[in-house]
Amino acid sequence: MENMTLAYYAAGAGAFALLFALFTMSQVLKESMGTPKMKQLSEAVQEGAMAYMNRQYKTLAPFAIVVFIILWGLKYVIVVPEGGHLPVGPASAISFLVGAVCSAIAGYIGMNSTTKSNARTAEAARSSGLGKALQVSFRAGAVMGLSVAGLGLLGVSVLFIIFKSPLIINSFAFGASMIAFFARVGGGIYTKAADVGADLVGKVEAGIPEDDPRNPATIADNVGDNVGDTAGMGADLFESYGATTIAAMLIGNTLFGFPGIIFPLLVGAAGIIAAIIGTFTVRTSEGGNPQAALNVGLWTTNVLTAIATWFIAKTIFADPSFGSVSTGIFMAVLAGLIVNVAVGYLTEYYTSNLKPPAIKIAEASKSGPATNVIHGLAVGMESTFIPMLVFAGAIYFAFWSVQSNAPEGQGAVWAIYGIAMAAMGMLSTAGMVVAMDSFGPVADNAGGIAEMAELPPEVREKTDKLDAVGNTTAAIAKGFAIGSAALTALALFSAYVDGVKIKFGLDEFIVNLTEPMVLVGVFIGGAVPFLVGARTMRAVGEAAFGMVEEVRRQFREIPGIMEGTGKPDYARCVDIATKAAIGKMIFPGIIAVCVPPIVGFGLGAKALAGFLGGLTTVGVLLALFLANAGGAWDNAKKYIEAGNLGGKKSEPHKAAVIGDTVGDPCKDTSGPAMNPLIKVAGTISLILGPLLTRL
Amino acid sequence: MENMTLAYYAAGAGAFALLFALFTMSQVLKESMGTPKMKQLSEAVQEGAMAYMNRQYKTLAPFAIVVFIILWGLKYVIVVPEGGHLPVGPASAISFLVGAVCSAIAGYIGMNSTTKSNARTAEAARSSGLGKALQVSFRAGAVMGLSVAGLGLLGVSVLFIIFKSPLIINSFAFGASMIAFFARVGGGIYTKAADVGADLVGKVEAGIPEDDPRNPATIADNVGDNVGDTAGMGADLFESYGATTIAAMLIGNTLFGFPGIIFPLLVGAAGIIAAIIGTFTVRTSEGGNPQAALNVGLWTTNVLTAIATWFIAKTIFADPSFGSVSTGIFMAVLAGLIVNVAVGYLTEYYTSNLKPPAIKIAEASKSGPATNVIHGLAVGMESTFIPMLVFAGAIYFAFWSVQSNAPEGQGAVWAIYGIAMAAMGMLSTAGMVVAMDSFGPVADNAGGIAEMAELPPEVREKTDKLDAVGNTTAAIAKGFAIGSAALTALALFSAYVDGVKIKFGLDEFIVNLTEPMVLVGVFIGGAVPFLVGARTMRAVGEAAFGMVEEVRRQFREIPGIMEGTGKPDYARCVDIATKAAIGKMIFPGIIAVCVPPIVGFGLGAKALAGFLGGLTTVGVLLALFLANAGGAWDNAKKYIEAGNLGGKKSEPHKAAVIGDTVGDPCKDTSGPAMNPLIKVAGTISLILGPLLTRL
Repeated sequence: MENMTLAYYAAGAGAFALLFALFTMSQVLKESMGTPKMKQLSEAVQEGAMAYMNRQYKTLAPFAIVVFIILWGLKYVIVVPEGGHLPVGPASAISFLVGAVCSAIAGYIGMNSTTKSNARTAEAARSSGLGKALQVSFRAGAVMGLSVAGLGLLGVSVLFIIFKSPLIINSFAFGASMIAFFARVGGGIYTKAADVGADLVGKVEAGIPEDDPRNPATIADNVGDNVGDTAGMGADLFESYGATTIAAMLIGNTLFGFPGIIFPLLVGAAGIIAAIIGTFTVRTSEGGNPQAALNVGLWTTNVLTAIATWFIAKTIFADPSFGSVSTGIFMAVLAGLIVNVAVGYLTEYYTSNLKPPAIKIAEASKSGPATNVIHGLAVGMESTFIPMLVFAGAIYFAFWSVQSNAPEGQGAVWAIYGIAMAAMGMLSTAGMVVAMDSFGPVADNAGGIAEMAELPPEVREKTDKLDAVGNTTAAIAKGFAIGSAALTALALFSAYVDGVKIKFGLDEFIVNLTEPMVLVGVFIGGAVPFLVGARTMRAVGEAAFGMVEEVRRQFREIPGIMEGTGKPDYARCVDIATKAAIGKMIFPGIIAVCVPPIVGFGLGAKALAGFLGGLTTVGVLLALFLANAGGAWDNAKKYIEAGNLGGKKSEPHKAAVIGDTVGDPCKDTSGPAMNPLIKVAGTISLILGPLLTRL
Repeated sequence: MENMTLAYYAAGAGAFALLFALFTMSQVLKESMGTPKMKQLSEAVQEGAMAYMNRQYKTLAPFAIVVFIILWGLKYVIVVPEGGHLPVGPASAISFLVGAVCSAIAGYIGMNSTTKSNARTAEAARSSGLGKALQVSFRAGAVMGLSVAGLGLLGVSVLFIIFKSPLIINSFAFGASMIAFFARVGGGIYTKAADVGADLVGKVEAGIPEDDPRNPATIADNVGDNVGDTAGMGADLFESYGATTIAAMLIGNTLFGFPGIIFPLLVGAAGIIAAIIGTFTVRTSEGGNPQAALNVGLWTTNVLTAIATWFIAKTIFADPSFGSVSTGIFMAVLAGLIVNVAVGYLTEYYTSNLKPPAIKIAEASKSGPATNVIHGLAVGMESTFIPMLVFAGAIYFAFWSVQSNAPEGQGAVWAIYGIAMAAMGMLSTAGMVVAMDSFGPVADNAGGIAEMAELPPEVREKTDKLDAVGNTTAAIAKGFAIGSAALTALALFSAYVDGVKIKFGLDEFIVNLTEPMVLVGVFIGGAVPFLVGARTMRAVGEAAFGMVEEVRRQFREIPGIMEGTGKPDYARCVDIATKAAIGKMIFPGIIAVCVPPIVGFGLGAKALAGFLGGLTTVGVLLALFLANAGGAWDNAKKYIEAGNLGGKKSEPHKAAVIGDTVGDPCKDTSGPAMNPLIKVAGTISLILGPLLTRL
């Protein structure tokens, strides 16, 4: 059944999601922005965010162009085998650019939506109440979520319709990855530099509250929430989405031909339609529970996707030669959906301020900052164990379910499709997950604007209620991002091995762990996440230092700033954070993009396979460790601030503030950098595989 | 050339080293212990240390007996294939016990030596000067070093002489590993619980100096230096020594028959004789540089070992059928010796208070404890990268040198011997490295006794000079311990694969990273070091908490304690640290010993291979990260205490003290636990390999 119409369906679903996102956006824009002061503040945040985005993409453009030229030009250097395809030449270069540009567009749309909704959410909370505020902020998030998933699906489908082969278009994933890595790292540095700068000088030294308009770094801080949490997470999941879809198509092509290619696209289409339906179920009343409303949305999406996948699998793999593999494929997709829920729950457990891990850290704060930090490190380390078992279980289950449902003799070969399908299942609901994640910063910003515009305290209470829910959804989304990165990386790894086999004409390209080159690759791959983690963490320290100096200078030099008569120079702080983030994202980015080719060309295809194995394992571990330690430190502080153990300004609270500051770069910069790191290595290897000259 | 006499030579060298150690001990005991007060303090430390050792081994005895019975009894459960050997039955059980007991004996001898030398070193510094003090303390360390290497070599050689097959005696390594893991973890918890307890209440709360006799935890603190640094490190390297020798013999047996078995024993013999000669070169004059003296000793040992290895290789592998492989084997041993020097240098670079990494952490202390901790984490993470490249390079070089020197067609198969030889080369000098490491705690304790016995300040100055050198040698030894653990684990991994191949009669047992079971194993293996790290770190926190409570209680309840008229209850503090360490070492120990059989029997031989790969990679990374971060935090504090950035009691100093406290469990408990963790998994897998029932 080779029916290209099906690809048009997928493209149509992607386009529909985009249109729906634009329509939702227009609905949001109809809401009032409130007082002139609120409008002005919102515009300042938006301006800063857009300035950052423009600068970021301007900085990345030359890198993208260089890669574009290389991909195109390699055509003239490398001899393409007769009848074969190599991932170089105009089509690949164009696919790369489309991936990069789509990622940027998704970022712009989402950013535009969330930064334009903060004042509107605050105003909704003020004039109409909680239900309306949830509606506005969630809709703003949904614009981001549906743009990410919609553009991902649309981009891949259209490229496939044009170029016909997944091998040609796999550089789409590399384009998305490269942008994602820079966006994650740059956004991560930006948000923490601004946050630490605003907190250390404003809250600690000057003793003014969070989001106080007298703090010169407060706009930068609010911009940071958007460029870090919204744009960074969006780019991250856009990348996972694109990379997984393409890896699944590549593997599917080798194993099943056209049905194997089209199936992932259709699962994506099902997931995106399910997410759109899911958004309609998110609503709450004045005294209601916003968390419950969001859960209904997520479960609706998951269940609808699962049901649709069953029918798609049965239809696409209906040919008798496939045996009952459709059942196995459905089970693999289901495994992905379950991992989604499980990892979200685990992340929430390890970081929530209502659960033992964070509470134990808070209690350790009684004997000072050192014990707080020690316990936080312990919680972070311990929090990796069960999620790793879940991933291992999912890998096994996904392989097994395809294998045991395949016709006699095909099981061992076909099983590899299982892992790609688990990844696809997990990511099919990305639209909803990103929507839930992006709603958090909107609520957070709305609270900031309420504070800065001096709205009555009950407005802040309502936005705080939403913000608290946002912290949970952010934790779930973080778990989702890590889990999807892990499964995506494994799918990319499988697709890479597949590509090498095709190139070298080997029936079995064996990545034997007992071979020296594989071990060498594993050791180098394992060390890279630590190096990138170190550099990004230090970057935050240095960038924050510059911000601290500037805020101190403004407090010292601008007359009347503390009395509210002198106006702080917000723009300068925004500028400093922007410059620091852009400047310091380059080195980690170069490591991420350059080490795989060095290993591949220098040490060979087996070393590169070992490299990917080591990188993925260690990268996922570090991502879990850093994200959960940071989250737990944050919530240990919040637990004390809620009045426990002496409450705010007590000695335990001071200790917990130190732990929280340590956790900031862990959870918002270095930890999140791991996801795109392992994926960018995978997507670049996918291109490298068929180009390598030695095993 | 199957000449069992050669094994007697090796046994003879081991016995000679032991006798030489006992002779050296008798020389040390001839020295004066100084004043009655000094004698009394020294005896209190010794008593505490011995009490801990007794309790530790009493607790471990039942575990050892259970394993002994299982190993013996399995003979009746498992059918041994005709003509084959399985690592079960009386010989294996006995070998296991010999390994465990030898490890304990080495610990007792070393402990006895170092705890009996502290007052003698102080007295030597007082009455004769620096040269004599170095002589006494280094000789005490040499007793430990030569006991470790001597007992290791003697034990393996004698068992081989009796049982003839390396396969039968491989449980010697498991016995040594099991004890080492508990000794490392227990000692690590002990030393940090006592240290943190003594510091937090004594130094910070009561404001009395370090090692003040009024501090009830001060004896426990000095005991901790011995049970943690000396006994823990000794057990760790004893294990590496035994495991590497046996892994090399196993692989050598498969590839070369008798020459392959005997060669590692002879390299060990050469190394041990070289170390004895090396000890004679360690001497300095009054104004001299103790570091230079120790370096001469280390280089002498390395060079002599290398020269001897050349001749041994040429003799043992003289048969024409071996081609020029002897050259390749020599080069592999050389690679191990070079890694030894390189990793020691790198560890020193990343942690020394004279080098940029620690100084940067000190500078970050200017903006408070949070930035200090962030920079420390960054230094620790970054410090893993180059050592991992060094390991990767050594793996590659060792394989390549054997492969390229092997006769036509044998290269690929024989290459695996290279990695075992690199490990053997590194460990052959263990006698000297342990001597250098053990001398540190003696000097440290001598300083403590000088302080407590109120000797004139110039005595303390001299012991401090030795102590500072001890910090460098400790850093070198830590690097050595990690490096040797990494190479040992790889040798064990190779030997395990070898064993599985023999069992299943497979020509190629392939650990293919693309197979689900291997990936599942890698993921689980990678997560275990994080779990063990988390649990050991938390154990320190909890144990320290108990100690803090007790010290506070004594200060509160014992009348005249602060005036020096009431006597603190040292014994109770020793008892608390002992109980906490013993109680909390059990859980991590059970994880280390039980997870490999669960994975092996539950998921199969391939999963266990993947498990070992993941465990080794992540374990080595975490070991480097934790040890170097902790060392750098420690020395950042020392850099400030040397008068920089405001010196003692300044704000940066307070921040640096917090960083140092965070680093304590990292560098002395959780980090060091990684080495025996990866080795115990390797040695137990060596036994499991031939027993597994599925691939």
